[in-house]
Amino acid sequence: MNQFIEPKILQGTRDFLPEQMAKRDYVLEKIKTVFTKFGYDAIETPAIEYAETILGKYGEEGSKLVYRFKDNGDRDICLRYDQTVPFARVVAANYKTLPMPFKRYQIGRVWRADRPAKGRYREFYQCDIDIIGTQSLVAEAEIAKVMAEVFTTLGFSKFKIKFNSRRLINSILNDLKIPAENQAGMIRILDKMDKLSPAEIKQELKSLASDSEVSKLLELVCVEGSSNERLNLFQKYNITEIQEFLKIAKGFGIPDEVLVFDPSLARGLDYYTGVIFEVYIPEVDIGAVCAGGRYDDLCSLFCPEKFSGVGVAFGFDRIIVAMEQLKLLDEISLNSQALVAYFDADTLPDSLKILGDIQTAGLKAEIYFEPAKIAKQLKYADKKSIPFVVMCGSDEKERGEVTIKMMKTGKQKTIPQDQIINYFKGYSSL
Amino acid sequence: MNQFIEPKILQGTRDFLPEQMAKRDYVLEKIKTVFTKFGYDAIETPAIEYAETILGKYGEEGSKLVYRFKDNGDRDICLRYDQTVPFARVVAANYKTLPMPFKRYQIGRVWRADRPAKGRYREFYQCDIDIIGTQSLVAEAEIAKVMAEVFTTLGFSKFKIKFNSRRLINSILNDLKIPAENQAGMIRILDKMDKLSPAEIKQELKSLASDSEVSKLLELVCVEGSSNERLNLFQKYNITEIQEFLKIAKGFGIPDEVLVFDPSLARGLDYYTGVIFEVYIPEVDIGAVCAGGRYDDLCSLFCPEKFSGVGVAFGFDRIIVAMEQLKLLDEISLNSQALVAYFDADTLPDSLKILGDIQTAGLKAEIYFEPAKIAKQLKYADKKSIPFVVMCGSDEKERGEVTIKMMKTGKQKTIPQDQIINYFKGYSSL
Repeated sequence: MNQFIEPKILQGTRDFLPEQMAKRDYVLEKIKTVFTKFGYDAIETPAIEYAETILGKYGEEGSKLVYRFKDNGDRDICLRYDQTVPFARVVAANYKTLPMPFKRYQIGRVWRADRPAKGRYREFYQCDIDIIGTQSLVAEAEIAKVMAEVFTTLGFSKFKIKFNSRRLINSILNDLKIPAENQAGMIRILDKMDKLSPAEIKQELKSLASDSEVSKLLELVCVEGSSNERLNLFQKYNITEIQEFLKIAKGFGIPDEVLVFDPSLARGLDYYTGVIFEVYIPEVDIGAVCAGGRYDDLCSLFCPEKFSGVGVAFGFDRIIVAMEQLKLLDEISLNSQALVAYFDADTLPDSLKILGDIQTAGLKAEIYFEPAKIAKQLKYADKKSIPFVVMCGSDEKERGEVTIKMMKTGKQKTIPQDQIINYFKGYSSL
Repeated sequence: MNQFIEPKILQGTRDFLPEQMAKRDYVLEKIKTVFTKFGYDAIETPAIEYAETILGKYGEEGSKLVYRFKDNGDRDICLRYDQTVPFARVVAANYKTLPMPFKRYQIGRVWRADRPAKGRYREFYQCDIDIIGTQSLVAEAEIAKVMAEVFTTLGFSKFKIKFNSRRLINSILNDLKIPAENQAGMIRILDKMDKLSPAEIKQELKSLASDSEVSKLLELVCVEGSSNERLNLFQKYNITEIQEFLKIAKGFGIPDEVLVFDPSLARGLDYYTGVIFEVYIPEVDIGAVCAGGRYDDLCSLFCPEKFSGVGVAFGFDRIIVAMEQLKLLDEISLNSQALVAYFDADTLPDSLKILGDIQTAGLKAEIYFEPAKIAKQLKYADKKSIPFVVMCGSDEKERGEVTIKMMKTGKQKTIPQDQIINYFKGYSSL
């Protein structure tokens, strides 16, 4: 008896079959188009790195989630956990020759040895852009513009780019006389605002500050109102950065309603120092679909130089989920736009010539591989949602014609073979 | 004293910086365009798989080169070694719902725990297309057509698609009365023809056949002449498959001089059963840049169904090396086509408006992030080979004008700001 290997994959990893890949490719291409429109260039780094490069950068929790192993030469190896640490390594190794300021995008897989759950994977894509080597707020504003264009281009009509400034948060905490050593901890707690209840947040904050300090802080950062109304309440704190940022963002043409000042926004990671961002799709309850901000110290683990920069990561998988939920991916089909039927050996050369003509007209097209019954060939076209089936049997061949079946309506049309290119030219932008 | 982590990577892995990535992306896009033109759809599989899926499929040598480790749950994990075994797993798991025949492409990284050498990497890209679920020779011919279009599209003018048939080789070996159990071994030796000397090949073959059998075999398969002259010498063997293949290939419009019958072509892997291919670039001494063929048993390790198919793998890294050597990638530049200079806060809004206009005209464009000296900004443009620098200082602002510097010639031109879109529209296909 045969023993088959079960064709299964690890939990938290995924096969992407053609229909899903078509959607993912569509989204990736749209995102890349915006990145390149603003002059970002791509880089790539290896999936496997020396353990000393990767470990110790993600806190205690993070380090447990790094895939780590020995290779044949007993070298200590890790799968990359994110793209930021490898990017810092690349910059440290190349900053003397890279153009500065340096702007790049990076789209690739990362791995986490995590317990899989809904929306939590062991292998997934990260999609990052960063500008490094400048302290100019034009960088923050450009990143905001890129985010706005990405989500507009993808078809989201109601997305919000929430922003705040770490400088403002620190200025508030200083004003409340919170000791410097407690501030990072309080920011990490504030970052959980959308996961915990107000009471829980309050409780956690009280471990680092007095009751009245916590109440004052929450009252301040949770204030309601428009961006401008809110901003007016913070005049006594350090808001010059935010004002300047908003002015440049206006120059970039980012609509006011898209950019929302949210003084409660904190971001969990310690390394942010200035403006921070999170993008939300109000109609979809999935958390931030893009996030990041200004940091001041990208490479100091790897080299004596420090690099200030701004970067955000697009949550590719969440964006796909949100688009599916909002039916923004329903029209994405497989590649093939026309199937040329295969009748017999005698008409095959004509059918191949017809295939070439359809492709010349700009359509993606294929020939069926076997002289099967036409019903079977139509079924194949139907399964792949191919809009046209083009037929040249012996009758058509004799008359120098071709029959085109429109699969959606079932209607057929017969035209001379020498008009195929002209006929399909109109459809090539399908 | 500070201890920095050395920003180094594992031998046999690579960082790709923007200039290299621009070339790689260009080549990948061209290849994908051909794949999709013929209706191939993409799939992706995980980089990490259960060890039982991956191991035992690549012979004794291959198995040593698989990266293998335990995860946190003590599961036995491997990095994928190629894309063929994961593809077989995907088909075994999904064949009941996939459209059949199924044609797909797959472009992704694979890992080999190998000793790195020139052109041999521990992490590299594979780029595969396969048609499965049909025995029709239209599949072989279409794959040949796709290969011809890929190499033509990439700008190679002299490439050759060498082909042969395993059925023909077996028919010759049978005629020489070579026992069936020795035939696979002899084919593996023939496959080394371009690596070993004729004397060495002869020597190795003699371990499996008599002197006169070896001489007859080599005389037959090493015959000189055109494809047709060679084919004529094999009339007594099984060549109906090759004749049929050539007829369909002609129907696809593959030029005669591209498709070269080479009876000495063998391919090393045991699983080929019919037509086999290797593509060579005569001007570049780098071995085959694409190879594959017909197989009859894709999935039998994973399921009771067998699938016949045809597939080839494009050697992405070798193709890049060959194109660089033939100077086919010299014109590929970074994304940015125009840099808008940044003079001061007063003119920044105008410069941002200008940036938007240039992008509206279809150019990829960026703004410099700091109001640095113009010489520094020009140097940045020069370093990134950006063809245009667009300037709007206070004088230009006052007159509603803009100055465009062509970096190649150094020439400048001043035009009204409202003509920017029209001016750059002509350049957008740069």
